[in-house]
Amino acid sequence: MSKPSLARGTRDFGPEQMAKRTFIFDTIRRAFQRYGFLPLETPAFENLSVLMGKYGEEGDQLLFKILNSGDFSGKLTDPDWNEGYKALTGKISEKGLRYDLTVPFARYVVMNRGTLAMPFKRYQIQPVWRADRPQKGRYREFYQCDADVVGTDSLLCEAEIVMLLHDILPALGIEDFTIKINNRKILTGIADMIGAHGMEGPLCVAIDKLDKIGKEKVEEELIQRGFTSESILKLEPVFSLSDGTAPFKELKNWLSGSEIAMKGIDELETVWKLVKTLGLENARIQFDVTLARGLSYYTGAIFEVKANNVQIGSISGGGRYDNLTGTFGVPGISGVGISLGVDRIYDVMEELNLFPESRKTSTQVMISNFDEEAFLYGLSVLPKLRNAGINAEIYPDSVKLKKQLDYADRKNIPFVILIGSDEIQSGLLTLKNMKSGEQQKRNASDIIALLTAERS
Amino acid sequence: MSKPSLARGTRDFGPEQMAKRTFIFDTIRRAFQRYGFLPLETPAFENLSVLMGKYGEEGDQLLFKILNSGDFSGKLTDPDWNEGYKALTGKISEKGLRYDLTVPFARYVVMNRGTLAMPFKRYQIQPVWRADRPQKGRYREFYQCDADVVGTDSLLCEAEIVMLLHDILPALGIEDFTIKINNRKILTGIADMIGAHGMEGPLCVAIDKLDKIGKEKVEEELIQRGFTSESILKLEPVFSLSDGTAPFKELKNWLSGSEIAMKGIDELETVWKLVKTLGLENARIQFDVTLARGLSYYTGAIFEVKANNVQIGSISGGGRYDNLTGTFGVPGISGVGISLGVDRIYDVMEELNLFPESRKTSTQVMISNFDEEAFLYGLSVLPKLRNAGINAEIYPDSVKLKKQLDYADRKNIPFVILIGSDEIQSGLLTLKNMKSGEQQKRNASDIIALLTAERS
Repeated sequence: MSKPSLARGTRDFGPEQMAKRTFIFDTIRRAFQRYGFLPLETPAFENLSVLMGKYGEEGDQLLFKILNSGDFSGKLTDPDWNEGYKALTGKISEKGLRYDLTVPFARYVVMNRGTLAMPFKRYQIQPVWRADRPQKGRYREFYQCDADVVGTDSLLCEAEIVMLLHDILPALGIEDFTIKINNRKILTGIADMIGAHGMEGPLCVAIDKLDKIGKEKVEEELIQRGFTSESILKLEPVFSLSDGTAPFKELKNWLSGSEIAMKGIDELETVWKLVKTLGLENARIQFDVTLARGLSYYTGAIFEVKANNVQIGSISGGGRYDNLTGTFGVPGISGVGISLGVDRIYDVMEELNLFPESRKTSTQVMISNFDEEAFLYGLSVLPKLRNAGINAEIYPDSVKLKKQLDYADRKNIPFVILIGSDEIQSGLLTLKNMKSGEQQKRNASDIIALLTAERS
Repeated sequence: MSKPSLARGTRDFGPEQMAKRTFIFDTIRRAFQRYGFLPLETPAFENLSVLMGKYGEEGDQLLFKILNSGDFSGKLTDPDWNEGYKALTGKISEKGLRYDLTVPFARYVVMNRGTLAMPFKRYQIQPVWRADRPQKGRYREFYQCDADVVGTDSLLCEAEIVMLLHDILPALGIEDFTIKINNRKILTGIADMIGAHGMEGPLCVAIDKLDKIGKEKVEEELIQRGFTSESILKLEPVFSLSDGTAPFKELKNWLSGSEIAMKGIDELETVWKLVKTLGLENARIQFDVTLARGLSYYTGAIFEVKANNVQIGSISGGGRYDNLTGTFGVPGISGVGISLGVDRIYDVMEELNLFPESRKTSTQVMISNFDEEAFLYGLSVLPKLRNAGINAEIYPDSVKLKKQLDYADRKNIPFVILIGSDEIQSGLLTLKNMKSGEQQKRNASDIIALLTAERS
């Protein structure tokens, strides 16, 4: 009988929020479909063997693990108990909740590669779960909207991601955004050029923080991570280049000695060209040599999207990976993808007041319940409304009209039909506009025509 | 590097299945909305205190439990380890996966009752998880589609559920179905009348099996469950009444001595009358005094829907409950709801071949990729198609045309645009119908008009 509560870091989505979230999901889904992506859904839980080791050690810790069913502890011995929770976990748990949509997608591609038409373009809109410490804007359950193409290394796919974002964000009302782009090959080349071969990993982690902590602190971190002062000195061009507008020429001069860096620059130039050929003249794209992204599996272009003038992290990110299925024994399937974060997009839209007012999915008209006779009459009108595709309900109880109108108000129902003895005799029902208060007498088919016009 | 696999009892839904499932979900959602139900989503996992004890002892066992994060075992002592897995579970797990949509809904209502407009009509379409032994047609992850009204005991709600099912099932193509209806009050009254007061629980369990095991075996089970042969003899009318067509009159004669049974019959008669008033002349409803339903919380009408001529269990079920929120300390909120099982509906539709052929959500046209010049020309056509709302893609790699057409075929893309040097010069593109093989030369805007007309 205790007061119930939500599990930490989770949320209910009531009707108001659902209407807004559905608007976001529908807009994204529709765009994914226009670009030829096909839908996929994978199970909420996967075998831990599929998930473990794919997200780094921290990720392994943040996986929600499911306790084995039945007598999970019966066969364990004293030494098992004393091994500590990490070793113990593997003995009492075999499944974990989905942590992102990319690894399950790679698993799906590997298991179905015999029947998939390659290149395979899929979208996936599902929740993921992470045992992070909950805080403002960070939840333990949140949705991701991913679109990926695998089985081709065509740079058109990168250009199409740029196009897709230019379709989706303005359709949501987010006009002022920047897509930052870099290429991992350039970062690899830079590591080579500064005499820190193979150290692009820690290099990325450090310079990714430039925005937040500034140049000096980045340099301090680099020293801590084992870079020599000579290397750091050679890194100077990165900081002067970092302010956008595709400074590919200067970059080429600097990095002409690195084959891989030159390939990365060439790839980006092709993407810029293809975006233009696709008709996007003023693309909101910006080269940022300090963009690094956390995940280790990227090998080519990387993306990150920010809504300008809103204090919030990136609302989308992605990139190209050349060997994601390799961890499942099938190497050589290149892919590129983008992930949109619905929760942050929701927050941006709330802050900028971008949600449209119309709610085509909620009730459009309520028939009031005056007395038994009017109720029965109302019941004969109700199916006519619904058959015409109008969302309609009748108040189920015979209570005071004020209470019924109050219900309609709270549910944001824009019209109420009032039926009394006059109305039953004449067949002319009173249609009340709940916003203006205006009332008019119309027969049922006129009301249907009026409400249908109102809806579209 | 081991071969990846799905967790037992779970499934991926690839593009083909997603299209079909989406058709079912959209049809159900649209109907729920037309009836004035509003959307709700609750988290995948709940505190175990919310879930435990709500589904009977078997249900408690079938809940998927989530291992606590971090060092879950550090504070446990030897006696803890030796208590057995049931007691241990409570010490290393605090959360469980959603088992149905009803209990989380009751939790939501209790937590938000101050702000909800009552009566509250909500629908909820989400997966649930049960650690059942997987078998044909039974999965560990499956979707439920629920609609419930709480905060009113108006029998109109029961009648609306009947209407709703008559809307949804034919819209899915399932015309031949039967809604079996009973009322728990009648079963309570029968238990009283046969001298087995308070034993309606075991009575329900036993007679619910009549269909499967026959009258004799039911009687055997009743004896095992402690019913006297005298009681069983008095039960005779149940078996002769069980073949439908609203035998309310006979029932009233038999049960006139039981106030609660008479109330149950009266309620059903009202539902029958309301359904008629709502304009449903030949409702596919059948009274079935042997319908009992497993769940213990029902207190009034109970429903179960079968697709006729298909060997499969019920595709929908529900009923009225008077005290679901009582377990959370808030008694007195009556409600009634229905749950549709998407997996069984899917199977019925497959067996009867009811899925519509049109797939408005997948790619409608692919632009082939002949050579660099044609590719660039194609890139200028592509955005025009998408801007017109047409799902379109261009083949990203320059490979043999046969391979490209094969891709379009496998992806069920109905049209392909072929671009060669002729086409670039004339501006007349070749549009190939992949089904008929027919080809025609048209300019881009004609193609857009043609494909738009084709789609609708």
